[in-house]
Amino acid sequence: VADGLSEAAEVTVTSFSDRLTEAVDRLRAPACVGLDPHLERLPLELYHPDAAMSASERRAHAAEAVQTWGMEVAAVLAGRVPAVKPQAAFFEALGAPGVAALECVVARCRELGLLVVLDVKRGDIGSTAAAYAQATLADEGPMGADSVTLSPYLGEESLQPFERYCGQGKGLFVLVRTSNPGAGAWQTPGDPSFARRVAAWVERANSSRLGAHGLGPVGAVIGATLGDEIPVWRAAMPSAWFLVPGYGAQGAGPADVVPCFRADGRGALITSSRGVLFGTDAPTEPGWRQGVARRTDELVSTLRRHIPGV
Amino acid sequence: VADGLSEAAEVTVTSFSDRLTEAVDRLRAPACVGLDPHLERLPLELYHPDAAMSASERRAHAAEAVQTWGMEVAAVLAGRVPAVKPQAAFFEALGAPGVAALECVVARCRELGLLVVLDVKRGDIGSTAAAYAQATLADEGPMGADSVTLSPYLGEESLQPFERYCGQGKGLFVLVRTSNPGAGAWQTPGDPSFARRVAAWVERANSSRLGAHGLGPVGAVIGATLGDEIPVWRAAMPSAWFLVPGYGAQGAGPADVVPCFRADGRGALITSSRGVLFGTDAPTEPGWRQGVARRTDELVSTLRRHIPGV
Repeated sequence: VADGLSEAAEVTVTSFSDRLTEAVDRLRAPACVGLDPHLERLPLELYHPDAAMSASERRAHAAEAVQTWGMEVAAVLAGRVPAVKPQAAFFEALGAPGVAALECVVARCRELGLLVVLDVKRGDIGSTAAAYAQATLADEGPMGADSVTLSPYLGEESLQPFERYCGQGKGLFVLVRTSNPGAGAWQTPGDPSFARRVAAWVERANSSRLGAHGLGPVGAVIGATLGDEIPVWRAAMPSAWFLVPGYGAQGAGPADVVPCFRADGRGALITSSRGVLFGTDAPTEPGWRQGVARRTDELVSTLRRHIPGV
Repeated sequence: VADGLSEAAEVTVTSFSDRLTEAVDRLRAPACVGLDPHLERLPLELYHPDAAMSASERRAHAAEAVQTWGMEVAAVLAGRVPAVKPQAAFFEALGAPGVAALECVVARCRELGLLVVLDVKRGDIGSTAAAYAQATLADEGPMGADSVTLSPYLGEESLQPFERYCGQGKGLFVLVRTSNPGAGAWQTPGDPSFARRVAAWVERANSSRLGAHGLGPVGAVIGATLGDEIPVWRAAMPSAWFLVPGYGAQGAGPADVVPCFRADGRGALITSSRGVLFGTDAPTEPGWRQGVARRTDELVSTLRRHIPGV
């Protein structure tokens, strides 16, 4: 059988949902740390621009600092949480050197066994969407992330070019319902509504790809502070991983996110960024690595105490 | 009056809508050419990877080709159309060297007097949205484009950080209603609907910023092939510039886009990308620059014949 080898090679690709389930279970940590390099909070030992720098010199210095910081933070997080969520915007604000830094940080995270949720919230169609998928998910592309966040405004065609990568072990997290104050006015929860239609698409996309525990590779972004609305979305997408921003510095506590989990304690990844990365420490703190480690451990132990089944 | 100088400096910033109106009127060309560097369509003299290249070597070679191509196309377009729309995805697919190429192409377009609509369709909130605005619009940032395309899924907070740049002569084009086949199922035109709410926000955002002919700096993306729906959106946003994709290679003809314009022949910018850039020419064509020039002139003269008032 001439094709036996390539068929066998294909079979060995583990789906994103199974990779995520395995990593969350192994660490007992349904958590994801956002890598948001706010320049004004970076350790002074890494970022110390001087007034004589031009704007582009300052960006190059910042990109170098952000790269070192991101790689060091990744080393602290590895073995503590299953996943990281680099926020592309902060790197892109530094121009091409910032994007090069993001590539290095993503590569290091993957080497360390951290699953990378590249937070880009892209949303386009046709060959443009295919180019964004190449830019973010493709293994032969510049980032090769494990998963991306996507914006669904342009309809199903904005999601399908990324969905194709699910067969290569990649995952998506589609914006469905966020909890920023202005979101509710437009992402209305009634049925039919835009957000409901997106949720239905997510559930449908998973239906042919269910892995362990009935979870699929197409996840949903669901805000942490939605209260009674969360069970509505959980019921609408039983097979979807929820990526849940809004925890910690952004206002939600552990009790708020309990309903994001399924009854078996699975299916949600709580993300915290500033709260874990910077806490209330001054940026001069020499022990900043230990601070990240301590706050990550606190995040995980708090979730373990509150989420039944974790 | 100590502040007289800085006040005077602020007053000299011309709004994006007035800059666009002036440029469209001067050239009698309500057209925008999309810069979509499809690698397989680039001239062979610029892009000729060989099989021995690694993936990253191939991307670096492609980025160099794309940069040269983009700068040469810009030189052809200057004086023919008022605006260009670089599609970020194609550059980002090449990684950091591609982003560096995009920065160079944007800078050259601006030097040549072309208004740059950076097609990024970003959509995030808070400090992340502010970082994207810095990445794309800020004059001291890496791109410094004249305007950007934005996705409104996360609500008003995803648009406001960009809206702040309107006072610095910058513009936005918010996705409202596109004409890809799957868009209508989610961006429903009924009232109330998500798309209707976005349109209302656009009109409101312009109300305090109206310039010449009652047009403001917050535009809307409206698909070219929406037929009877277009007058609905034109009536909902009388003060908004419409950025109209879907013309030419994507299916719409000049008669389709007439209703995108206001009765005075103003307020729409028809975009064509592949149809103008590549036509049906083989990529080996040695006269590719002349081809771009000829097809651009055809686009403009066709619009002049069909749009009353242009």
